[in-house]
Amino acid sequence: MLIEAISVIPQVFAPYLDASIMGRAQKSQVFSFNAYDLRDWTHDRHRTVDDAPFGGGQGMLMKPEPIFEAVEDVSSRGDAAPYVVFFSPCGTPFTQEVAQRLATKDRLLFVCGRYEGMDERCYKLADEVISLGDYVLTGGELAALAVTDAVVRLLPGALGDDMSAQDESFSDGLLEYAQYTRPADFRGMLVPNVLLSGDHGAVDRWRRESALERTARLRPDLIDTANLTDKERSFVDSLYAEEVDVVIGQGGD
Amino acid sequence: MLIEAISVIPQVFAPYLDASIMGRAQKSQVFSFNAYDLRDWTHDRHRTVDDAPFGGGQGMLMKPEPIFEAVEDVSSRGDAAPYVVFFSPCGTPFTQEVAQRLATKDRLLFVCGRYEGMDERCYKLADEVISLGDYVLTGGELAALAVTDAVVRLLPGALGDDMSAQDESFSDGLLEYAQYTRPADFRGMLVPNVLLSGDHGAVDRWRRESALERTARLRPDLIDTANLTDKERSFVDSLYAEEVDVVIGQGGD
Repeated sequence: MLIEAISVIPQVFAPYLDASIMGRAQKSQVFSFNAYDLRDWTHDRHRTVDDAPFGGGQGMLMKPEPIFEAVEDVSSRGDAAPYVVFFSPCGTPFTQEVAQRLATKDRLLFVCGRYEGMDERCYKLADEVISLGDYVLTGGELAALAVTDAVVRLLPGALGDDMSAQDESFSDGLLEYAQYTRPADFRGMLVPNVLLSGDHGAVDRWRRESALERTARLRPDLIDTANLTDKERSFVDSLYAEEVDVVIGQGGD
Repeated sequence: MLIEAISVIPQVFAPYLDASIMGRAQKSQVFSFNAYDLRDWTHDRHRTVDDAPFGGGQGMLMKPEPIFEAVEDVSSRGDAAPYVVFFSPCGTPFTQEVAQRLATKDRLLFVCGRYEGMDERCYKLADEVISLGDYVLTGGELAALAVTDAVVRLLPGALGDDMSAQDESFSDGLLEYAQYTRPADFRGMLVPNVLLSGDHGAVDRWRRESALERTARLRPDLIDTANLTDKERSFVDSLYAEEVDVVIGQGGD
C-alpha cells in the first residue's frame, strides 16, 4: 500500500512511522509512505497557506488554492488515483470498521489541515472526511498518523504474526479480555488460576466471559451491536442485575 | 503544565511537539514535556519489557515490573505527584470534555503500551484509562500525543488568540459552522453572500444555523445533548422533515 500525506509540517510523520512496528512494516514493504510540504504548491514569496475568514472571527483558515493544487498534483503521479481522506471533527467517526475498509485500498492520500480550519470548498476534494474522535486537535497530522497505524497493522505481514489482528478489541464487537503475563504473583496481585491451569477449554471460556464482562461494564453501548449467542446475552443480563465497580485493572487479587 | 510520557519509543514525541503550535507553546512555557524510555527500568541485559501471555495466545504483553518501577520512579520526582493516564480501547472514550478536565491538572504522566497489550495489573497504577476511539493502534504513543495536543491547545497562551479555543466544534455540543476565506469565487465555487455582507448579526445567525444544520445532518447523535433554544430545536426538527444530502463540503455554488 502507498500512503501519502500533505501537510505544512511534513517532518512529523517519519519519526513515528520509522519506529517499531511501522518501521518494520515499511522495511518489509508492507507499505511505503511519502510526506509532502503543502507550501511547495504556493506561489508567493511568503509561501502563504492561510488567510482570514470571511465574515470575521478569530484565527486563520487554510486557503483553497494550495490544497487543490497539491491534491491534484500528487494524485496525478503514479498509476492509480489515491483515495483522498481529509480530517475534521465534522467527519465520519473513525472506527475499526473504517480502518478495515481503508485497508483494502491500494493508495491513500491524507490531507492535513492546521490553524482554525479549512475553507469549506476544500472538502470537495475528499473521497471521505474522517474524525478521529469528538475532540479538537491543532491539525490533521496526528489523525493521519493514527489512521495510518490502525490501517497498516491490519495489512498482511505488518504484525509479527498474521493472526494477531484478529483476536483483539472490536474484532467481534467486544472489548478484549484481560491479559496477564509473568510473574503469576506480582506484589500480591495474582493471575487468575484458570489461566495457569493448562485447560485450554476453560481458558477460552474465561476469556470470552472476561470480554463480555468488560464490555458490559465499561462500554455497554457496544453490547447492543455485538455478535452474541442467546446464552451470552443472558450472561450479560445477569451482570447488569448485579451492582459492581468497573473491572479494568482488577486482577485475581 | 508538565507532561511526561513513558514509552519504549520515546524518540517519537519530540518531532511533533517541537513543531508548529506545540513547539511555540513549549517555547513560551505553556507546557514542558519529558519522554522516558521504559527500558531504563529493566534489569536484564536484553532490557526485556514484554513476555508471553498466561493461558496461551499470540503476541507478547508488557510485563508489570518495568511499568510499576518506571511510574513510581517518575512520579516520585518533582513536587507534586502526576495524574497518571494509561491508554487502552477498554478506557473511557476521549472527548473534548475529558480534554478540558485534564487541562486543569498541573502534571500529567502518560504510560504508553505496545505489542498485544499490557498485563492487566498495570492498570492499577492509572488514575484514568483513556481510549482515543473505537479502533486499535499498535501502541499508546499516538494517543498520548493526541491527548497532549488537545489538552495543551486549551491552556492559556497556547493558541495565538486566547479566544480561539472557545468558538469551535464541541465547545457548545455542536460541530463548527462552515468557514470560508478568499477568493470569494474559487473555480466557480462561491462563498455564501451573507459572509461578504458586513452584517455581523446576519453572519452570526448564518453561522449558528450552519452549525445546527451540520450537526443535525452529520452527527444527529450530538443534537440530543446539545444546548439549544426551543426555536433552535424547531429549526432542527424542520431539517429532519426534509430529504437532503450530507452538507460537508457544500459551498454556495
